[in-house]
Amino acid sequence: MENFTYYSPTEFIFGKGTQKETGAALKRYGAKKIMIVYGSDRVERDGLMNEITDSIEKEGLEYVKFGGIRPNPTSDSVYAGIEKARGEGVDFILAVGGGSPIDAAKAIALGVGYGGDFWDFYSGKATPSGALPVGVVLTIPAAGSEGSGNSVITNEKTKQKISVRYPMILRPKFAIMNPELTMTLPWNQTANGIVDMMAHIFERYFSNTPDTQLVDAYSEAILRDIEDQALSLRLNPDNYAARADVMWAGTLAHNGLCGVGKEEDWASHRLEHEISAFYDVAHGAGLAVMIPAWMKFCARRNPDKLWRFAINVMSVDPAGKSTDEIIEEGISELKHFYHDLGMTTNLRELCGCEPDIDKMVKSLHRNMGDTLGCYVPLSMDDCREIYEIALQD
Amino acid sequence: MENFTYYSPTEFIFGKGTQKETGAALKRYGAKKIMIVYGSDRVERDGLMNEITDSIEKEGLEYVKFGGIRPNPTSDSVYAGIEKARGEGVDFILAVGGGSPIDAAKAIALGVGYGGDFWDFYSGKATPSGALPVGVVLTIPAAGSEGSGNSVITNEKTKQKISVRYPMILRPKFAIMNPELTMTLPWNQTANGIVDMMAHIFERYFSNTPDTQLVDAYSEAILRDIEDQALSLRLNPDNYAARADVMWAGTLAHNGLCGVGKEEDWASHRLEHEISAFYDVAHGAGLAVMIPAWMKFCARRNPDKLWRFAINVMSVDPAGKSTDEIIEEGISELKHFYHDLGMTTNLRELCGCEPDIDKMVKSLHRNMGDTLGCYVPLSMDDCREIYEIALQD
Repeated sequence: MENFTYYSPTEFIFGKGTQKETGAALKRYGAKKIMIVYGSDRVERDGLMNEITDSIEKEGLEYVKFGGIRPNPTSDSVYAGIEKARGEGVDFILAVGGGSPIDAAKAIALGVGYGGDFWDFYSGKATPSGALPVGVVLTIPAAGSEGSGNSVITNEKTKQKISVRYPMILRPKFAIMNPELTMTLPWNQTANGIVDMMAHIFERYFSNTPDTQLVDAYSEAILRDIEDQALSLRLNPDNYAARADVMWAGTLAHNGLCGVGKEEDWASHRLEHEISAFYDVAHGAGLAVMIPAWMKFCARRNPDKLWRFAINVMSVDPAGKSTDEIIEEGISELKHFYHDLGMTTNLRELCGCEPDIDKMVKSLHRNMGDTLGCYVPLSMDDCREIYEIALQD
Repeated sequence: MENFTYYSPTEFIFGKGTQKETGAALKRYGAKKIMIVYGSDRVERDGLMNEITDSIEKEGLEYVKFGGIRPNPTSDSVYAGIEKARGEGVDFILAVGGGSPIDAAKAIALGVGYGGDFWDFYSGKATPSGALPVGVVLTIPAAGSEGSGNSVITNEKTKQKISVRYPMILRPKFAIMNPELTMTLPWNQTANGIVDMMAHIFERYFSNTPDTQLVDAYSEAILRDIEDQALSLRLNPDNYAARADVMWAGTLAHNGLCGVGKEEDWASHRLEHEISAFYDVAHGAGLAVMIPAWMKFCARRNPDKLWRFAINVMSVDPAGKSTDEIIEEGISELKHFYHDLGMTTNLRELCGCEPDIDKMVKSLHRNMGDTLGCYVPLSMDDCREIYEIALQD
């Protein structure tokens, strides 16, 4: 295990009806004028927005709304949000929704008090020294952004989708998490979220850092439970217990707990970011394609952890099988699981056209440099091969 | 799963050499004059104190020392600490050691700014509205106090050992955790710590709250890893990887993660507190006696979770066995594990005399009222029976 710092100061307020506590939480964290950042109409339609604004008004606080954040949130929406927040003099950003509004809220929070272009913090040109405080009402368990210091923004002009991690600055002050709010999600969003949160654990699990028995053991336990609950939800989307487990697992998957003391990989995420930047597919859907392809590429180059994954997470019975066979069965079981969730694991089917692999590799090279990941360090030729494996399925 | 709030804002700075970062952490959290609260001579003898004070001086901060905190810290030492802290005008309390100095540091932090008797916060007479900030350099993984909002103090005058939980106020700002510092611990302290941290998970695991699959699954994973690493350490106490896992597990066992959404039990802890209050045995040693006795008492009254524990934590093979047999084997395996660590599971042997069960039950009644715990709610007669079971082993 490597030395690490683990800092997860977000207050998680979890359970039925907790959205009514939003105003009280905002007041406790010193908010006076709040900008509510959200995406879809679902927030307004289901009455959630009214419950939130009622609770804010009850505490005597002011708010403005800033809606319309789309999946894979863009720099344009961040610029507009920064302008509105400055114009209205807000001192707190409240994100309502899933990863997209939360990530946009964090980017806006970074930009409001900064003299330059907020994109400087994403392009690596500048490091932030502070941000407006952010709170969250989570409605889509997936990105884990409610407990992380991360934010992913797509720059439409440069076609770059870049993820940053500023844990001391960007972790939300609080996250309100009511699993009931996830019951009205369309199934594909539930499924995408499940793939995404499992991927957040994979990116940390597949590592060459030695002596990580404890973190690997609880990571495997969380992964197995997500699988179980996902299959329950496929049969009965109103299963509160399963919704609750999935929601809490999504937070634990990405609040740092599963990565303590380990070098992390993140190659599958980078490979996926190019797909969703060019073809505007959902992040989770892209991961369901790229993760098995990445595993297949790594199988012979670094089998150890894939072998353990097959047995401990995918419940492959190792008796009488070679290492290769065990790993192959593990990957195959993962694909079956994705298929059971209704997802494709084929890149062409995902994009709905012949994907331009040259273009994606070129962009990946520009964004990430010559190599990617650590479990198997990937050259750009390796990345091309992984995209090609994803076509073969 | 019940609604819950999970708030663990402590910054954990974990790994080799991290004690040298103490001064920088204190400065980051605004300390100007620090009182260092510690217990044993080991802190001075091993050169740790010098490393800490060097790092404090390097940051230009002031400090005073307050040593001599004993295991099962007493109200007298807290009164003395409050007086010294007030006299010196300190604004930050740094605990160096294990649960005892940390719990004493928290009690001192509660008392410094309070007009009344700090014991009011333990006796239930008053609720605190604030406390001085507390930091920790952990040298004994056991109590989990480095990440919890709990503090346990023994009032020598009234012979009461009382635990309080004020998570919004008492969680340390930071905890410096270098597993190397635990290598010079006498074996019995390592073993006591292992029993204690496992008990912190048991108290949350054994619960009747339905639909707690995720939290139970990762709790079991942590418990199994502690067992594995404990047996490794018994053979090789200098095994850094095992020391690191045990140290991190001790924090996760008690920072609330394993209790989210569950009613918690804590009967074994209360039963043990009476033993260590009257016979001054180590808390972990007392738990190794009381937990198997408590399990035996509960076995037929509420078998479900004990059955799961036997299979998932103690690795009992259920094939061809009755529920009773499975549970009995699980408890027996746990006792063997404690014996392997060099501990007794017999109350008489622990106390070194015939324990006065009447006196303990009377005191328990005074401290806790008529019933105890939730997995099987215990009457005072039940508690007597459990003490008696602990004599029979």
